[in-house]
Amino acid sequence: MSKIVIALGGNALQTKGSEPTADAQLHTVRKTCERIAEISEQGHELAIVHGNGPQVGRIVLASETAKDVTPSMPFDVCGAMSQGYIGYQLQQSLKYALGIRNKNYPVLTVVTQVIVDEKDPGFDKPAKPIGPFYLQEEAKRLEEEKGYHMMEDAGRGFRRVVASPMPRRIVEIQAIRDLWSSSIVISCGGGGIPVVERADGTLEGVAAVIDKDFAAELLAENVDADILMILTEVEKVAINWGSVDQTFLDHMSLKAAAKYVEEGQFAPGSMLPKVEAAMKFVRSYPNKKAIITSLDKALEALEGKAGTVVTFA
Amino acid sequence: MSKIVIALGGNALQTKGSEPTADAQLHTVRKTCERIAEISEQGHELAIVHGNGPQVGRIVLASETAKDVTPSMPFDVCGAMSQGYIGYQLQQSLKYALGIRNKNYPVLTVVTQVIVDEKDPGFDKPAKPIGPFYLQEEAKRLEEEKGYHMMEDAGRGFRRVVASPMPRRIVEIQAIRDLWSSSIVISCGGGGIPVVERADGTLEGVAAVIDKDFAAELLAENVDADILMILTEVEKVAINWGSVDQTFLDHMSLKAAAKYVEEGQFAPGSMLPKVEAAMKFVRSYPNKKAIITSLDKALEALEGKAGTVVTFA
Repeated sequence: MSKIVIALGGNALQTKGSEPTADAQLHTVRKTCERIAEISEQGHELAIVHGNGPQVGRIVLASETAKDVTPSMPFDVCGAMSQGYIGYQLQQSLKYALGIRNKNYPVLTVVTQVIVDEKDPGFDKPAKPIGPFYLQEEAKRLEEEKGYHMMEDAGRGFRRVVASPMPRRIVEIQAIRDLWSSSIVISCGGGGIPVVERADGTLEGVAAVIDKDFAAELLAENVDADILMILTEVEKVAINWGSVDQTFLDHMSLKAAAKYVEEGQFAPGSMLPKVEAAMKFVRSYPNKKAIITSLDKALEALEGKAGTVVTFA
Repeated sequence: MSKIVIALGGNALQTKGSEPTADAQLHTVRKTCERIAEISEQGHELAIVHGNGPQVGRIVLASETAKDVTPSMPFDVCGAMSQGYIGYQLQQSLKYALGIRNKNYPVLTVVTQVIVDEKDPGFDKPAKPIGPFYLQEEAKRLEEEKGYHMMEDAGRGFRRVVASPMPRRIVEIQAIRDLWSSSIVISCGGGGIPVVERADGTLEGVAAVIDKDFAAELLAENVDADILMILTEVEKVAINWGSVDQTFLDHMSLKAAAKYVEEGQFAPGSMLPKVEAAMKFVRSYPNKKAIITSLDKALEALEGKAGTVVTFA
């Protein structure tokens, strides 16, 4: 029986190729929650963190598209809305999946703010694209009028880019800890709503995207979890991806992982942050482990039969 | 020192005449949270419920306006998004207002589902207008394609109307109770996300609006609160409103309140649900009280110097 923080990737919320509707998402979320309930059934204590990339992108898109009929929403508020949206579907579906297994734990979503450092190097080079595509002249106007950073995106037009700073502190951590033993808490959705702390103690939302894997890692440290489990599309981490030497890894020590990162084995914005979050966790807690695997293999991975396990040594 | 459930009305979130932007709302929310922090400072234990009418209306409006570029969201999801939006601003502002008073309680928003009965008479005559106005032919198409109920609204066009059923059960109540003693919980936003329970135990979101005063009343019963405090624009409940006999009431017994309701003294959708929620609370707990007053008079009302107090006898 372990305390596990599970980080859910985009494929846990939306099935590739399906319509990006709330109904289609609910369908996928229900399947995801069956897998999570199976893990809970083994007696493990769980907390859930999820991504929000496509969802917050669509909320921003709807908000910007409708700006002539109703004021567009700031990015931090769009993040908060995505936590409500995704958290609602997860808590509804997980409660049901646990209920049919006679596990009647409370499941709830906590709207979560995560403090970032306004001097974080991530703010120097905003690079995370969000929301709709714009024509060059519109992009220029937004840069001037709203101070947005705009960047050309793969020849498809211009998009707003925001910073991706590191999470420093989870504002609601005390309540999440208080709930841990009695409930399954869904928190830090989309990496958390990024806020900076002003000198007078005021928190202020900023336009930024915190990587949900790093937020899950911080949560795992804060709640003293035994395992950080990062779920994604592939069963195992691979090196030499796409070449004849492609090798799936059952295990990585911190040292081996650092070497692979150095070699550029992992794609930035995809496998790299997952491996880095796993490394950070075992560096902080040398007697604990991180697991990177797929949703379908999660249970087997906990039994040591699947996935890539990252340990200190 | 009392346990108090506070229900915040629309004016606690948006100042009349101000722009309906998230920034303007945050400005108002910060002032509201100063008042709430003052109450907390007296040693009372608080939980917060808020309305979401204008906010969810704008989320629906943005979603429908942008439907050709991104799929529109079902109404229950829009409600969940409004809980994220408003809860985020409240928890951020209240945390600060408490912090400058050296009160470092956790403040958090719980995404909340509230079960309604699908046989509730409210579903027979949907009458609560939501979202944008449509032309007659569009309204007809939506009735046919999506099964919406559409109604002409004051000569300004057609609007979708949804049911306003009574809240039966707060799905996340156990976690809200667990948090009560350590935290200030913001829950049941907008009356809660309305869900019906299917025979197999599945919860399913429905297009409906639960009155936030009734949801706050149910919460107050469930957490065994001493006081249900309903905050609105006026300091006291009045009878003979707008006539020469207009009288503001310091106190109403259950019997007197029932008589005034019978006489049609209170406006449906406005003061009536507040008085009815107050009556329901003291009927269930004859030794407790409900208070209807304004945000600015809340503290005085707790000292017995303002507001309308509703008691059993």
